[in-house]
Amino acid sequence: MQETVAPARNMMRIVDSQQARRIIRTGEYAGHTAGIAPDFVQGNLCILPLAAAQEFAAFCQRNPKPCPVIGMGSPGDPSLPDLGDIDIRTDIPRYRVFKDGKLVDEPTDIRKYWSEDLVTFVIGCSFSFELPMLQEGIRLQHVARDTTVPMYRTNIECVPAGRFKGNMVVSMRPLSPADAIRAVQITSRFPAVHGAPVHLGMPETIGINDIMRPDFGDPPEMRPGELPVFWGCGVTPQVAIEAARPSLCITHKPGSMLITDRKNSSLAAL
Amino acid sequence: MQETVAPARNMMRIVDSQQARRIIRTGEYAGHTAGIAPDFVQGNLCILPLAAAQEFAAFCQRNPKPCPVIGMGSPGDPSLPDLGDIDIRTDIPRYRVFKDGKLVDEPTDIRKYWSEDLVTFVIGCSFSFELPMLQEGIRLQHVARDTTVPMYRTNIECVPAGRFKGNMVVSMRPLSPADAIRAVQITSRFPAVHGAPVHLGMPETIGINDIMRPDFGDPPEMRPGELPVFWGCGVTPQVAIEAARPSLCITHKPGSMLITDRKNSSLAAL
Repeated sequence: MQETVAPARNMMRIVDSQQARRIIRTGEYAGHTAGIAPDFVQGNLCILPLAAAQEFAAFCQRNPKPCPVIGMGSPGDPSLPDLGDIDIRTDIPRYRVFKDGKLVDEPTDIRKYWSEDLVTFVIGCSFSFELPMLQEGIRLQHVARDTTVPMYRTNIECVPAGRFKGNMVVSMRPLSPADAIRAVQITSRFPAVHGAPVHLGMPETIGINDIMRPDFGDPPEMRPGELPVFWGCGVTPQVAIEAARPSLCITHKPGSMLITDRKNSSLAAL
Repeated sequence: MQETVAPARNMMRIVDSQQARRIIRTGEYAGHTAGIAPDFVQGNLCILPLAAAQEFAAFCQRNPKPCPVIGMGSPGDPSLPDLGDIDIRTDIPRYRVFKDGKLVDEPTDIRKYWSEDLVTFVIGCSFSFELPMLQEGIRLQHVARDTTVPMYRTNIECVPAGRFKGNMVVSMRPLSPADAIRAVQITSRFPAVHGAPVHLGMPETIGINDIMRPDFGDPPEMRPGELPVFWGCGVTPQVAIEAARPSLCITHKPGSMLITDRKNSSLAAL
């Protein structure tokens, strides 16, 4: 696999979303997007054949907390005009291509996989609601420690749609009770990026038995006087797609997201 | 002391705030106001001499969560036109009169205590935010069991103002984590009646060592899978006033509130 060419520290200085996408489009940068153009919405990618896409759209509509759709393409059309001047075949640093549920490629562009039958979904990500929490002075341990947010499989069943079903995956941020209350207020204003928490304080009641052993991401730092606060997570649709094993599915490589031209602040509900 | 004349069960049928006040004004009803004219805002009463009133106004302004002022009279004026056609000297079922911090009377009207030096404060009460929670289908144990909400002295210091100081008193409602999150959202819309919770999940960190032994009200029913959720409580200003021992102070008798003509829904922030 091709290695990253543009050094991450230079990409992190970029504040303009269009400039970031221009570099990514050339294949020069294939790394993580956290911290790049931080005022702009980043999204999770999922591309599916039309037949599966219909069902997936219903799955997302029925499970908006883990699967908030912020952009949907027309069949065969790689552009996403609502989100910016985007060609979804080239504008993500690194992709994952699955055939019948099996990972077969991790390219930096997907032009050779594109067809008239494909439909693009962009799903909101928690970067957009973490920024307003950080701006409010709330400490997020995974940001402070530069680790990946811990994520857990729960016993909360998603509402199924056709072949798509499964339990919700949640991300967790430990917060003091006062910050947890403030975080509910802040993230409630962002329904397009997971919105309010789905749970807090009692991990065992949603099927999480060991908070120090997440299913995805890094183990958290739990400090005295902090509660675990759980939000719906964009890994949920990925898990549902893996289980459904569609003939073809293209996603972003975790961490290498789509950078859009929408400002995070534009996602705030009025 | 004079006993209640109008039976409580008849008062509970009254939905019109003005009709309720007309009966109370005559002295015919001297009981609790919970459930009377339930769509209308009820308030806690505090009447103080002008010198103390200035400081008390500052105390409330600095501590809006436990002391949300919804109405303030002019010195010597017993009317409260913002809240309805009210004569504060007669329109509360039963009063408490304190001299130098000592309870000296529990009359059904206070005309004989009124003077040009007195200032009226009406402070929002949690009835107004419990209604929207109940309407959302959230079970409140003290309502379901017809007991008084449990209230606790905390170690959270109020911001002092002149002679008024002290720790915050909180009310507690046990809720499932999902209902706790919904309750934060709902009550955040009601800053005039205590607003969002001040704490949840960890009573010991705010100085509450035994949740089953409240300082005021009845012991709660704590069911498995429920978290204690704490809101600022209107008993806080009463405690601050008791400690300040003003020469004169007139309050309502706990539970016998002022029924205003403002709809609860009018207190929702937009």
